[in-house]
Amino acid sequence: MSSDSVSLRDRWRHIIFGTDTPAGQYFDQLLIVAILASVAAVMLDSVQSIHQQYGTWLYGAEWFFTLLFTFEYMIRLWVSDRPLRYARSFFGVVDLLSIIPTYLSLFLPGANYLLTIRALRVLRVFRVLKLAHLMTEANELGATLVRTRRKIGIFMFSVVIVIIIFGSLMYLVEGPANGFTSIPRSIYWAIVTITTVGYGDISPQTSLGQAVASMAMITGYAIIAVPTGIVTAEMSKASMARRYERECPNCHRHDHDPDARFCKQCGTGLPKPGQEDAG
Amino acid sequence: MSSDSVSLRDRWRHIIFGTDTPAGQYFDQLLIVAILASVAAVMLDSVQSIHQQYGTWLYGAEWFFTLLFTFEYMIRLWVSDRPLRYARSFFGVVDLLSIIPTYLSLFLPGANYLLTIRALRVLRVFRVLKLAHLMTEANELGATLVRTRRKIGIFMFSVVIVIIIFGSLMYLVEGPANGFTSIPRSIYWAIVTITTVGYGDISPQTSLGQAVASMAMITGYAIIAVPTGIVTAEMSKASMARRYERECPNCHRHDHDPDARFCKQCGTGLPKPGQEDAG
Amino acid sequence: MSSDSVSLRDRWRHIIFGTDTPAGQYFDQLLIVAILASVAAVMLDSVQSIHQQYGTWLYGAEWFFTLLFTFEYMIRLWVSDRPLRYARSFFGVVDLLSIIPTYLSLFLPGANYLLTIRALRVLRVFRVLKLAHLMTEANELGATLVRTRRKIGIFMFSVVIVIIIFGSLMYLVEGPANGFTSIPRSIYWAIVTITTVGYGDISPQTSLGQAVASMAMITGYAIIAVPTGIVTAEMSKASMARRYERECPNCHRHDHDPDARFCKQCGTGLPKPGQEDAG
Amino acid sequence: MSSDSVSLRDRWRHIIFGTDTPAGQYFDQLLIVAILASVAAVMLDSVQSIHQQYGTWLYGAEWFFTLLFTFEYMIRLWVSDRPLRYARSFFGVVDLLSIIPTYLSLFLPGANYLLTIRALRVLRVFRVLKLAHLMTEANELGATLVRTRRKIGIFMFSVVIVIIIFGSLMYLVEGPANGFTSIPRSIYWAIVTITTVGYGDISPQTSLGQAVASMAMITGYAIIAVPTGIVTAEMSKASMARRYERECPNCHRHDHDPDARFCKQCGTGLPKPGQEDAG
Repeated sequence: MSSDSVSLRDRWRHIIFGTDTPAGQYFDQLLIVAILASVAAVMLDSVQSIHQQYGTWLYGAEWFFTLLFTFEYMIRLWVSDRPLRYARSFFGVVDLLSIIPTYLSLFLPGANYLLTIRALRVLRVFRVLKLAHLMTEANELGATLVRTRRKIGIFMFSVVIVIIIFGSLMYLVEGPANGFTSIPRSIYWAIVTITTVGYGDISPQTSLGQAVASMAMITGYAIIAVPTGIVTAEMSKASMARRYERECPNCHRHDHDPDARFCKQCGTGLPKPGQEDAG
Repeated sequence: MSSDSVSLRDRWRHIIFGTDTPAGQYFDQLLIVAILASVAAVMLDSVQSIHQQYGTWLYGAEWFFTLLFTFEYMIRLWVSDRPLRYARSFFGVVDLLSIIPTYLSLFLPGANYLLTIRALRVLRVFRVLKLAHLMTEANELGATLVRTRRKIGIFMFSVVIVIIIFGSLMYLVEGPANGFTSIPRSIYWAIVTITTVGYGDISPQTSLGQAVASMAMITGYAIIAVPTGIVTAEMSKASMARRYERECPNCHRHDHDPDARFCKQCGTGLPKPGQEDAG
Repeated sequence: MSSDSVSLRDRWRHIIFGTDTPAGQYFDQLLIVAILASVAAVMLDSVQSIHQQYGTWLYGAEWFFTLLFTFEYMIRLWVSDRPLRYARSFFGVVDLLSIIPTYLSLFLPGANYLLTIRALRVLRVFRVLKLAHLMTEANELGATLVRTRRKIGIFMFSVVIVIIIFGSLMYLVEGPANGFTSIPRSIYWAIVTITTVGYGDISPQTSLGQAVASMAMITGYAIIAVPTGIVTAEMSKASMARRYERECPNCHRHDHDPDARFCKQCGTGLPKPGQEDAG
Repeated sequence: MSSDSVSLRDRWRHIIFGTDTPAGQYFDQLLIVAILASVAAVMLDSVQSIHQQYGTWLYGAEWFFTLLFTFEYMIRLWVSDRPLRYARSFFGVVDLLSIIPTYLSLFLPGANYLLTIRALRVLRVFRVLKLAHLMTEANELGATLVRTRRKIGIFMFSVVIVIIIFGSLMYLVEGPANGFTSIPRSIYWAIVTITTVGYGDISPQTSLGQAVASMAMITGYAIIAVPTGIVTAEMSKASMARRYERECPNCHRHDHDPDARFCKQCGTGLPKPGQEDAG
């Protein structure tokens, strides 16, 4: 690899991974616009009337974006220190899935629906978080969800059990004559009901069925308090936890605000944050 | 401008902006009644049977309110120190939009639907907050929403991505034959489902579609916990901090903990909660 | 009034208002059973098939309960120290409304529907809270709702404005041809949508209408966080507030648990709750 | 009972109740798989097309699982120190209900629907919590719900009263002509509406009915804040208290605040958070 090639690679690396340089920011903004435009093109192309009128234009746009993203994908592979690791990472797979269907449609003309997979391109928009300097908030939200995953998991597990029981019960009570043709379909009804979505495509007809359905609805209405409580308690705790970090050298009280200079209990001067160990 | 005119302008100013004077309060109450009455008239006029029977009366009422609000708008322009700034402010635009359509309907008789814009008059009712001394609570609510806007933004951003993916997936799974005629329409279905509204105008027919829909419903049901948690954690923090709001007599800092005895800023002793007035 | 009569009145008073005496508890339990039975009778009587088969029995039961409640109402008036005050109190009015319709049906045989008012009897069941010693919790919940009423009021006020605007907008966008026949009906649709109920009896047909409806749904889905946050923050505060009541005589710290005997900060003995003033 | 038999019993006891031994873990995992497979078989068998094609296989699988669970039930009875207590416990009854229907179907061939009861087997999956070491979280969630049961109870009680009143009102307003054929059916509508499920199988047709329905919807939308607030406030309190759970070395009390330095029970100095193990 010549010295020129290396410097070109470094320049591309700065463009693709840089968030502070003008070139990097410009590239990110351009990428977001291209992603949104390509997703919009995919969506519009699925509308029959638009497809008939502007199909050729959209086909051209599709190949333009596909070639652009293919070029970007290759650049990313090239400038990455561990190309394989990038290729197998979440965004690497999404980047690949964004371009593959268009090429496949050349060889498998019947697989038109496959093209819908390109809508996954929208996932690439999450890179915008980096752009908008929202990573702190995004990480905070993510950390909360990670910390609550066991409790939320138990809750969802219980909800699934409740759904299966209500579904089976309704199959027993209403039966195939009233639209509850099988237990899986009754479970689908139970999910529609307990999550309070309520399409109404299947609904209980008998009095007993309506009574059971009422219980399912009230259950679904009341238990939404549980995941909300779990997430909220965790978020409150996280925002409080930051206070229990500094200790007063005189009275040893230690729930001081990050910006406190004197102990709120005894008025003694506090060490600066991060200096407790040194003191 | 004669001295009489100035005093007239001042008098009007007191009437329009005054919240403590009897004249100002009387004007505000009258204005609210007029706004509500005019909005009610617009609504009733849209009901076919009422329009046929009381159309003439409502037409008269409409012109009465329009002239009244035009008069008020001009007075506001006149007494305002910076008329242009008022005209371009939120309430200035709303005030103008409240009267324009009626005049336009004289010249554009076909633009009947345009008259619906007058319903925006209802926004003017927000002035009632000033009247009912609810500004503190309204500001507190507003401040909470402002502080949480980045986190809520990230959440809504993620929800939109999830909606697009579920919408595209359902277009792939169910297809045009079952009502999912295009990706935008499938996305509409995904919004109806994930927000747990569930009209049922489009609903999955195949088993696989119902399985995907079930996942969308459970997702929508579970993630409502996130914005609730964000807003609640912020409100809890704000309402704790505010509860015993006290000011340091030395350095005037005033965000002290409920149980603080000394100023965290300068170490000066703080008055006990509830004794500020006495001190 | 003879001495016998007085003692009889006192005895009834003990039966009706007593919550600790066996007679009072027995009366309360009997009353609850009678109320629930009479409400159940009213409900069952409204079912056509049951009315045809057991109409006579239910008619008899109705008169039995009406005479019983009339007797109880008169006793309550008699033993009450201020009969007029009771008659105009919430429960007094409910008690009267529970018996009036049956008598009226004798003179106004056509006013069958009026009998439905008797379902208000169910409100009398709230007396059960006294019976089940749930008053503390009920009062705590009530106090929270009272303290949050201004903020919840502003929120509901804003929601109503948003509903009116979305309703008017949809009338403009969809028009009478798609079921949005008038602004009031469009507002009904907006309420159905923003509260995430989603009957589907009226739903947007045009693409633009579905886009506006999507915004309404997402709005309704997101803003439910606000009242939840308000109520939760208030409840958290209330449960915390009980801690800021006792002060350590040595270090003056004052956020101790109700059951603390020693200061958690300096280990000094704490005065018993309620004795601070004496110390 | 011979010594061999006893040791065999002990071995089985270790397999069934052991959570740390490899044999016990293997048995638990196998049991979960068997339960899920048998529930899946019951569900699939209820689908007409699958029943016709694979009915014989599923019938065989059903008897295989039934004999397996019967064997397991008998082993549990045998190794249990108090067989009767196990038989009457929650899981004991569920275990029995999981196998009874299959045997009954031999003698009562018509009672096909009875077989649906086997879906209750899914309740046995809750044993998985033991397996996945999720008991702490499950108990914490359970304890929160137990502590809030009185307040949640009062809330649900009030909701039921509100539902009955709205249901009766709609029966009065809309009447049988618009689908509100009886008070119980109107109450079913009120539940569908207030829980925001909104099937749309019954919906108000008159303007007055839609106005009342709107009030019911807004009520349901707003009051969901109450149970959420109750559960969240309780969870916040619990999760704060638990965070730095520490035990007094003298009196062994262990519900101390995160920032406590001395035991609130006996005044003894507490080890610092995170140092319990070292001390």
